[in-house]
Amino acid sequence: MNNYSAKVAIVGVTGYAGRELDRILGAQSHIRVCGRFASTADPVAGIDSFSPDALRRCGPDIVVLAIEHDLSLEAVPLLLAEGYRVLDMSGAYRLKNPDLYPQWYGFTHTSPELLETAVYGLPEFFSKEIAGARLVANPGCYATAAILPLLPVYRADAIAPDSSVVVDGKSGVSGAGRKPRLDTHFCEVSENIRAYGVLQHRHTPEMVSWLPGSTFDRFVFTPHLIPINRGILSTIVIRHRDRAVVSAILADTYAGSEYVKVFLNSAPSVQDVVRTNFCHIGVTSRGDTTVLVSAIDNLVKGAAGQAAQNLNLMIGRS
Amino acid sequence: MNNYSAKVAIVGVTGYAGRELDRILGAQSHIRVCGRFASTADPVAGIDSFSPDALRRCGPDIVVLAIEHDLSLEAVPLLLAEGYRVLDMSGAYRLKNPDLYPQWYGFTHTSPELLETAVYGLPEFFSKEIAGARLVANPGCYATAAILPLLPVYRADAIAPDSSVVVDGKSGVSGAGRKPRLDTHFCEVSENIRAYGVLQHRHTPEMVSWLPGSTFDRFVFTPHLIPINRGILSTIVIRHRDRAVVSAILADTYAGSEYVKVFLNSAPSVQDVVRTNFCHIGVTSRGDTTVLVSAIDNLVKGAAGQAAQNLNLMIGRS
Amino acid sequence: MNNYSAKVAIVGVTGYAGRELDRILGAQSHIRVCGRFASTADPVAGIDSFSPDALRRCGPDIVVLAIEHDLSLEAVPLLLAEGYRVLDMSGAYRLKNPDLYPQWYGFTHTSPELLETAVYGLPEFFSKEIAGARLVANPGCYATAAILPLLPVYRADAIAPDSSVVVDGKSGVSGAGRKPRLDTHFCEVSENIRAYGVLQHRHTPEMVSWLPGSTFDRFVFTPHLIPINRGILSTIVIRHRDRAVVSAILADTYAGSEYVKVFLNSAPSVQDVVRTNFCHIGVTSRGDTTVLVSAIDNLVKGAAGQAAQNLNLMIGRS
Amino acid sequence: MNNYSAKVAIVGVTGYAGRELDRILGAQSHIRVCGRFASTADPVAGIDSFSPDALRRCGPDIVVLAIEHDLSLEAVPLLLAEGYRVLDMSGAYRLKNPDLYPQWYGFTHTSPELLETAVYGLPEFFSKEIAGARLVANPGCYATAAILPLLPVYRADAIAPDSSVVVDGKSGVSGAGRKPRLDTHFCEVSENIRAYGVLQHRHTPEMVSWLPGSTFDRFVFTPHLIPINRGILSTIVIRHRDRAVVSAILADTYAGSEYVKVFLNSAPSVQDVVRTNFCHIGVTSRGDTTVLVSAIDNLVKGAAGQAAQNLNLMIGRS
Repeated sequence: MNNYSAKVAIVGVTGYAGRELDRILGAQSHIRVCGRFASTADPVAGIDSFSPDALRRCGPDIVVLAIEHDLSLEAVPLLLAEGYRVLDMSGAYRLKNPDLYPQWYGFTHTSPELLETAVYGLPEFFSKEIAGARLVANPGCYATAAILPLLPVYRADAIAPDSSVVVDGKSGVSGAGRKPRLDTHFCEVSENIRAYGVLQHRHTPEMVSWLPGSTFDRFVFTPHLIPINRGILSTIVIRHRDRAVVSAILADTYAGSEYVKVFLNSAPSVQDVVRTNFCHIGVTSRGDTTVLVSAIDNLVKGAAGQAAQNLNLMIGRS
Repeated sequence: MNNYSAKVAIVGVTGYAGRELDRILGAQSHIRVCGRFASTADPVAGIDSFSPDALRRCGPDIVVLAIEHDLSLEAVPLLLAEGYRVLDMSGAYRLKNPDLYPQWYGFTHTSPELLETAVYGLPEFFSKEIAGARLVANPGCYATAAILPLLPVYRADAIAPDSSVVVDGKSGVSGAGRKPRLDTHFCEVSENIRAYGVLQHRHTPEMVSWLPGSTFDRFVFTPHLIPINRGILSTIVIRHRDRAVVSAILADTYAGSEYVKVFLNSAPSVQDVVRTNFCHIGVTSRGDTTVLVSAIDNLVKGAAGQAAQNLNLMIGRS
Repeated sequence: MNNYSAKVAIVGVTGYAGRELDRILGAQSHIRVCGRFASTADPVAGIDSFSPDALRRCGPDIVVLAIEHDLSLEAVPLLLAEGYRVLDMSGAYRLKNPDLYPQWYGFTHTSPELLETAVYGLPEFFSKEIAGARLVANPGCYATAAILPLLPVYRADAIAPDSSVVVDGKSGVSGAGRKPRLDTHFCEVSENIRAYGVLQHRHTPEMVSWLPGSTFDRFVFTPHLIPINRGILSTIVIRHRDRAVVSAILADTYAGSEYVKVFLNSAPSVQDVVRTNFCHIGVTSRGDTTVLVSAIDNLVKGAAGQAAQNLNLMIGRS
Repeated sequence: MNNYSAKVAIVGVTGYAGRELDRILGAQSHIRVCGRFASTADPVAGIDSFSPDALRRCGPDIVVLAIEHDLSLEAVPLLLAEGYRVLDMSGAYRLKNPDLYPQWYGFTHTSPELLETAVYGLPEFFSKEIAGARLVANPGCYATAAILPLLPVYRADAIAPDSSVVVDGKSGVSGAGRKPRLDTHFCEVSENIRAYGVLQHRHTPEMVSWLPGSTFDRFVFTPHLIPINRGILSTIVIRHRDRAVVSAILADTYAGSEYVKVFLNSAPSVQDVVRTNFCHIGVTSRGDTTVLVSAIDNLVKGAAGQAAQNLNLMIGRS
């Protein structure tokens, strides 16, 4: 007897995000994970490699792709053509403008028509669109940590004209994926911190695209790798038009939010939110400057937890 | 037979900075550490507590204070009155304007006349003044990591008018001192990162004071505690007037520098400089934005290494 | 309408173990935490200090003490006299023989008669006694990690005569408590490992007391502090009489166990069990030597999780 | 004008051990590193791959191999045939008995005749042999941390008959090499500890071979990976014949030692020795049990520092 309301297949279940999603869905009785597949690019002993036939045997309502963006780029149109709904956790379908892909991702987008219909999976703002979507693009971890505090501010036009918004992101190492690289070797990461992708990181166009009124010239994002497993802390400096507006708009926007909490004159830490789906936002002002500090677990609110929110919206649960 | 040219006493030798200075001076044959004292506020078994008599027995040319700023505030005039030259590693004598102390440090300065004559111990810029000084104020760790990349830029008037300079500092835990506190408990720091002192940190007035043309309204400093022992990485975002000027002025200023190295289109990591007196500065630009990333060891270039540079200048060595 | 079957008060809820227990019980609908008290020795803003009156207002069925052993020593007889059942998480009532306390704990036991009736809270072996107990002594973290693998082996008399059992324990820092000390300062723990209490640690008499046939002369326990937040890995070397007996007896004993899992020719890691109530035991043999490796989360199976097991047994649930 | 007395080539200079040796020799004016080569198996941009021709151009007196043992196995006879003296940092030439290689290393030794003449590079015990050797096998890191405390004890026949010696080693991650593997991924190591190679680790036959009187049946070595960059702490439990003999023999043996220090009733930590060539040994006894705790930096005394000692001996300096 089935007491679940949806079947989900996860492709890329051996990576950190896919594994975390599998774990999260395991605690949700109304969703059944009917298939767990390794990426075709990364076969793992004991895990089936993804194939159309294997997917058909499982018969999912929704296929979640927790794989590299170049694989998602190709897989999404095939899966949609087979009639599956798709939740893509990569960056391949997050941007509306296909022209941004060559510069920031290094490839020409092969399905620009899908970019138009893809829904950006930010449940706090696009829950209706997500509910009806055939293709949902799950937001990036850094993007989530920046857009949640900034989107209400931009929408309220609360940023001083011609001023730059500066986002300084610090991420745990699981954000770099599970594939062994010298970059993620313990000895290279421990007792170290470094900035990377300075002025070139792929989450920059995602932030600028989804923050109305932002521009590449006045939006500066710098990611950093720090020696923790999980978590992102982003420190965001803006010049506000009116400090009262910024704190009020954030407090109001998230007053009833299940997962986003706002703290005035306080700054959250990663330990406050790790292993939860929460995003904590601290707001501090002086003069015409406001500092927003946001904290999420990059694998939960920044990936699998947000994916679980989206899956629930897609099957009609809030 | 003495083959050294100067005798130095260290007060506060059981803290991280004092201990590091003791270690560094141990390798410099021309300086002899004639006295090692614990802070009067922090007596330690086996280490003499600081007292005027104990100091007289040692007879130092220079007394180094590696103690809390409230203790330094009181000790410095007494030591100067006794005829000693003083290198103070606290913040008590770093600011020129006594009016800044109540707001940022929470006390009224009791020796404002000494602030006028104290020399700010930044060897790359004030070596002559340091050489002749009776009182040298050793710069703060965050301040060093911000002022070294920014001072040439401000001097060249290379920052766009009315734009904010944003400094995001990340420090290892030794910067918080050796005194046990819940804040520095392993379990509170490990797998964590947090911002602290948002818009209120004491190194802010130090930076603004020593960066000509900067103002509190257009200078935003946010420090963070990260789970490493040593090191500071500071990510600095400026809007430049002319990108060529910024990179040229930094490259020129430090072309012959022993300890400051400039890297174009590259970002240093803390591991590049840890346990050295180097400051590495990376410069990357896009549009009218320049990102400067600086890395130092907070206990060396940010404290004891810079103190050793200052001591050598004070005794006539470069 | 109450749908819980028991009320519990936690004394010492601001420490790591007490806080973890509060969190665990929060997910158990049949237990209500009716009171949360700070230790009288460690008052915390916003948390009530423990007092008889405060306890009476809450009216718990069971009082859990998550406080220092010297405080438990005094509090337990008072609480029992008031009619409460008590679960003590300290070492004050774990040993049967009062003569061991002066040597290993440095105090003379003031309630030796309670040692006779106290039940050692190891659910896998003493569930019946726990169910009926008025006073349960929750086992120590290192002791749990050693006794679970070794108790079946000792009971089966499977250790070669006159051979030594060597237990090498490695613990995360939360085992040292939340009170700030130089020992637990991030900079003293990170990039470090040290043995402590060599041949003198208090869990040694706990292990020897509960392992039938063991003796102080032939049981060697060495604890180590390692730079992780949570978790214990213990590596245990024995000389077996018959290797088949050791693996069979462990596999059999824990065949139906909810929380203890045995793995042949494999060694668990702390990450396998962290944030769970599991104890994983690996068994590897060569010649007449067997190496047992056990892994637990020191705050869960080694403290609060085991306490929750005991509370459930005390209220008649298994 | 050369003021050095020897030229050395390092093969495998991009690994952790090779890089550390290069750094150490950089501070020794009498040795010049005339060639730095990457392993043929691991070519690195900007570093020459090792080749006979490249080696000839450099003309070293001694070739240091800091490469995998299978590469050393083949390279050593070729280099000796070319007339070079060789210091091999791998395990390929550490054992005297070729029959141990198939079982512990998984290969049949192709130059068993060289095992006879190879000198084990433990300077504290074999300095004369090292001075004259054409081939020196630099000891393994775990082996160094075990043999230094145990060799005097075995030589003095101070261990009780038929008792087992138990060595529990804990190593930092640099001991696993610089090649990226899932095992050394930050997220797999951080907040974790695991035993590995239980009863099968390759340093076991090295220890048993060089500890006179030890046997595989009565010698148990278990290595563990802990989340630190550098350092080994080994906890060694023996049953002594006479506790006075153990402490006396250790104190006497190392009374004049430059790098080995013995501490009675005390246990060293890794931070005491990291980035130094010291080995600290703590000795604690109770009944007929003695616990020895040794600490080294695995890359210095456990690899490159000991190699530098050996190179100096080979060129006639002590």
